[in-house]
Amino acid sequence: MSWTCPEIPPLAKELEPQLRARIDHKTKPPGSLGRLEELALQIGLMQATTTPVLRSPIVLVYAGDHGFAVEGVSPFPPEVTPQMVQNFLAGGAGINVLARQAGLPIKVIDAGVANPLPVHRDLIDLKVRTGTRNALHEPALTPIEVDLCLERGSQLIRELAQHGTNAILPGEMGIGNSSAAALLYSALLGLPLDECVGVGAGHDSAGHARKKAILARVQARHPGITTPREALAAFGGCEIAMMAGSMLEAAAQRMLIMVDGFIATSALIVAWKINPAVLDYCVFAHASGDGPHRLAVNALGGKPLLDLGMRLGEATGAAMAWPIVRASVAFLNEMATFDSAGVSKQSEAKV
Amino acid sequence: MSWTCPEIPPLAKELEPQLRARIDHKTKPPGSLGRLEELALQIGLMQATTTPVLRSPIVLVYAGDHGFAVEGVSPFPPEVTPQMVQNFLAGGAGINVLARQAGLPIKVIDAGVANPLPVHRDLIDLKVRTGTRNALHEPALTPIEVDLCLERGSQLIRELAQHGTNAILPGEMGIGNSSAAALLYSALLGLPLDECVGVGAGHDSAGHARKKAILARVQARHPGITTPREALAAFGGCEIAMMAGSMLEAAAQRMLIMVDGFIATSALIVAWKINPAVLDYCVFAHASGDGPHRLAVNALGGKPLLDLGMRLGEATGAAMAWPIVRASVAFLNEMATFDSAGVSKQSEAKV
Repeated sequence: MSWTCPEIPPLAKELEPQLRARIDHKTKPPGSLGRLEELALQIGLMQATTTPVLRSPIVLVYAGDHGFAVEGVSPFPPEVTPQMVQNFLAGGAGINVLARQAGLPIKVIDAGVANPLPVHRDLIDLKVRTGTRNALHEPALTPIEVDLCLERGSQLIRELAQHGTNAILPGEMGIGNSSAAALLYSALLGLPLDECVGVGAGHDSAGHARKKAILARVQARHPGITTPREALAAFGGCEIAMMAGSMLEAAAQRMLIMVDGFIATSALIVAWKINPAVLDYCVFAHASGDGPHRLAVNALGGKPLLDLGMRLGEATGAAMAWPIVRASVAFLNEMATFDSAGVSKQSEAKV
Repeated sequence: MSWTCPEIPPLAKELEPQLRARIDHKTKPPGSLGRLEELALQIGLMQATTTPVLRSPIVLVYAGDHGFAVEGVSPFPPEVTPQMVQNFLAGGAGINVLARQAGLPIKVIDAGVANPLPVHRDLIDLKVRTGTRNALHEPALTPIEVDLCLERGSQLIRELAQHGTNAILPGEMGIGNSSAAALLYSALLGLPLDECVGVGAGHDSAGHARKKAILARVQARHPGITTPREALAAFGGCEIAMMAGSMLEAAAQRMLIMVDGFIATSALIVAWKINPAVLDYCVFAHASGDGPHRLAVNALGGKPLLDLGMRLGEATGAAMAWPIVRASVAFLNEMATFDSAGVSKQSEAKV
């Protein structure tokens, strides 16, 4: 099986004048809703309508383990991945609380957790491997496994589309995945590895230095990477590859993609290198507290909605930004116009 | 009748270690929820509890007219104030949409609208005058009217407190009130007037220049102002003074105050000059797109949660930031701990 990237339709730019006119007739000074007006426009163009609607938005937490976690790249031990999956399923993790607040359902996707996981209504088993191989010694994934991740991520979105979903909030969990993300940033954005290694889940400075040293050895083990699939095969992980496949399919289905933090952005970089049109369907949720994230967001031309110093992953940044996106569509559809409300218009001539 | 500022209790600083411990035991790397953790701490200290709860939060839109609106300080004609009040009551304005999205009820307070307004369940009649006097020729308010505004704003909050409210989101409507706000900024922060005059409801550059020229004449008409009540008497408006009274009483009642944009911040400056402890109970919602607002927020040491380029007033910035505040309290009360979820803790020693 070899995965083929789906075709991504262009934004419906021909609707831009009509959408701008709708926005400007609302009872407010022109431009006074700032980014909400930009979002309303972007979502209208995505959905190719002047009356966009957000239907069945869903948080998708992709989980996977990383072979090089045993090298100590994270301050947390590898068993935390399945423990946190259990926490998600029990409703006690950060993303559970924030998704409840935003009225969003969650599904956890087992993309490649090392341990067996229980059957649960909120867990989708798409496991490709029981964790990646240790990239310090060998490629994390085979090319076939990479394509399997991309395809399963894509298939998941096709099924959601059939049930009416037109917006996704992808996040992730996986001890060691900020290391895989750093290696992907460096390989695919051409940035020095040192600039791509953040503090992740909270290293002290000695831990951060060790992480950098280990990742430099991993990088040296895999020279000559040029394509996004080669980078995924070298460094993993399953959850990042699967998320990239989902993002590309979401764009193909004209879905809105809320881009979470450091690791979700590594999946977007992969997706963007495969098909840059994916960016048309992205809204950047949060400027992560992790420094390298900002480099990547800048490289992608993103303008994150929030800057709350968060660095938890799990789609928590995306969930926090969701009310802003929802508000943008609501003002476009629900606010009165000057005519309908009988409010006098601005008149520079009078002043 | 002479108004006396209520006493504002200090934050319960003695609870800080317990609150920080509760925050750090949640299943997340320490500090990884960023500003949400700061907010949870601040709200706990406000409410003097390690398990804070937000009860019956409410949007309060204070409306008033300004005598100098006839001079053309706004690009909108004065009749827009009552028209917009009708729009609020009909549910069609920006704040109606955004408050609905955030699950917040709204009350409109007639602090000093020039026209009579209809009886309506969401309109509270606290009218002190039918608009302020034209400050280009005489003081906008008498000292007694200023105190009446402060007292009525205060009384409104005492009544809300009796019904259990412990968080308010004050906003405003009033053609010309960005001019009153600019004059208050200049008088009370000691900033040059030129730096305090924003584009308001959307002037072009010629309109902006005319606004500055008119306001310079107003300022020159009222020399020697030293106290916040003198500034309110000189420049108005009723809605700003009443909001200031509400803010001071809210702090006295240990309520959270969501600080909206440019004009709400002028009310806070007044309140802060009367009693600086009001700031302990404030959360700055949004860095307004209007430049002078940032000067004021900096002067007050505020760190706005959002920066979405909004400049609509009406408490729209406060409503947009509300989900962040709500999420901060929710994570503190609902997230699992490492112990309760059986998740292994971070261990730098292992790395």
